[in-house]
Amino acid sequence: MVKRFYVDQYVDRILAGDRVVLSRAITLVESKLPADQELAQQVINRLLPYAGQSIRVGITGAPGVGKSTFIEALGNYIIQQYQKKLAVLAIDPSSQRSGGSILGDKTRMEVLATQPNAYIRPSPAGNSLGGVARYTRESVILCEAAGFEIIFIETVGVGQSETAVHSLTDFFLLLLLAGAGDELQGLKKGIMEMADALVITKADGSNRDKARAAQMEYQNALHLFPASASGWQVPVQLCSAQEQMGIAEIWASMQQYVIAVQQNGYWEQKRKSQHLYWLHETIRQTLAERFFTHPEVAKQLKEKEQAVLSGQLSAFTAASDLLNLAYKQDH
Amino acid sequence: MVKRFYVDQYVDRILAGDRVVLSRAITLVESKLPADQELAQQVINRLLPYAGQSIRVGITGAPGVGKSTFIEALGNYIIQQYQKKLAVLAIDPSSQRSGGSILGDKTRMEVLATQPNAYIRPSPAGNSLGGVARYTRESVILCEAAGFEIIFIETVGVGQSETAVHSLTDFFLLLLLAGAGDELQGLKKGIMEMADALVITKADGSNRDKARAAQMEYQNALHLFPASASGWQVPVQLCSAQEQMGIAEIWASMQQYVIAVQQNGYWEQKRKSQHLYWLHETIRQTLAERFFTHPEVAKQLKEKEQAVLSGQLSAFTAASDLLNLAYKQDH
Repeated sequence: MVKRFYVDQYVDRILAGDRVVLSRAITLVESKLPADQELAQQVINRLLPYAGQSIRVGITGAPGVGKSTFIEALGNYIIQQYQKKLAVLAIDPSSQRSGGSILGDKTRMEVLATQPNAYIRPSPAGNSLGGVARYTRESVILCEAAGFEIIFIETVGVGQSETAVHSLTDFFLLLLLAGAGDELQGLKKGIMEMADALVITKADGSNRDKARAAQMEYQNALHLFPASASGWQVPVQLCSAQEQMGIAEIWASMQQYVIAVQQNGYWEQKRKSQHLYWLHETIRQTLAERFFTHPEVAKQLKEKEQAVLSGQLSAFTAASDLLNLAYKQDH
Repeated sequence: MVKRFYVDQYVDRILAGDRVVLSRAITLVESKLPADQELAQQVINRLLPYAGQSIRVGITGAPGVGKSTFIEALGNYIIQQYQKKLAVLAIDPSSQRSGGSILGDKTRMEVLATQPNAYIRPSPAGNSLGGVARYTRESVILCEAAGFEIIFIETVGVGQSETAVHSLTDFFLLLLLAGAGDELQGLKKGIMEMADALVITKADGSNRDKARAAQMEYQNALHLFPASASGWQVPVQLCSAQEQMGIAEIWASMQQYVIAVQQNGYWEQKRKSQHLYWLHETIRQTLAERFFTHPEVAKQLKEKEQAVLSGQLSAFTAASDLLNLAYKQDH
């Protein structure tokens, strides 16, 4: 069991940068116990005034693209060159399905894990998408209050969590391997168009030429796609964690993005619309959860689904029937 | 006012292919009056067993790409060469904003509009997205029951309706102009990755070479993007409505798609998941509508949104507060 503190203790120690208490607070946020959630919300609301100051970076890519190695390299660079405090949160709602290649073992970021300015937090798998989105968002707030200036949020790029992560980050980075085609099979459609930067990993040794060719191809391809509202031209960058190549350029490009969108107002606008999105989304998810766990609805849902599938009922009528069940019961 | 019939009359006459009654039934479906909606649902549910047999094609593209001209050309081809019955439904929830270049005047499809085997139905603008999606879905059912074998659903590609249309069609066709860049500005991000085919329009005269170059570029680009679960290789096709070029190839390609996905099971699977999606989506939209129009919620929503935007409340706490308002009132 996790040790609980008073609200004041969480707040004071997190603001002091105490990472043991930070971890315990994140565990509270992730807890399913109502008492823990209540406590977590009190802590979150007290810490909100100290949050919002970090750069939130989503990092995704198919299994095998080298996410951990990339994060290790970029993370160490940021910490060593710029003395930044970096938190890495890993979401993997589908770790069972995808083989759990995400941050399951922290040892894959050997150097980063030992840095006093780095904090690495894998998320437990198996929660609902809504849950993962909420606790990642709130973990971000806790990390920011604890003084972390850059926050990486890692996902595997094959599930549904990318849309959620895209809606809670400032910058979305997609890692790709050279040798177009096969490695994309696992990636979710639409993910390419979410990216603020593409990075081709493992651009070293005999792979270098292939990576350069891929870079050109992606650059040409991106011109053919609708432009972002941010006005940002999505770069395609090469990187070799092994040869420590490309890391500085990627960081520089992220900095340029931040400056550009802070100047043109997109940063502020995106953060605001994310806040409102999550307020409305939390409501919608809660309403749906309550509805679908309503005993009468739960009892008849399958039957109504079958009636729709077999063409006996329109989706609208089946929905009305189910809504009436829950509505009548409540009144 | 629209003349109402008895349910049996709608059913019998629609099944007999009576397009006057079909139009009146669609008007019922679009009506906001509860009595009309009730009647519409009875008609829909009676006609459901006769629905589902058409090929439902979403056709989208930015204003100026030549959607009406394309639909006129493809539509006439299908009707004349294959004696198919074709219905064209046009959705434009944002027609005020986009200048209403969609099917506002049927005269833009001069020849098609006079074909006995064609039925063209512009949708009224200004409804909610959820409403548009529902009545388009139900208009499809009515058209299918009336014997239409191909149904085109036209949207302008700049709003949110494309996601809805994608979720109710079998095949999604995106029209583009050659001369990459500018004409994409208005298109919604992510729309490219929804497409089952890209068609470059106005590939004639002095535009032909540019169109061919664009075709190559898009073909190369598509290889770099995640593949569809359908196993279908998205083609990039050229078309000139003026020179009657490319139309036969586009129709042939759509036929190939249908055969391929009917064989590999994707057709059936997609239709099923669309049915379930719309059942769940209708419920979610109704729950959200009820919630946000709840008097207490409506009164306090702006205030809570402000509290979230100014960093006084977490999105989760604000959502809980609002949910409690509606919940307490109900009990």
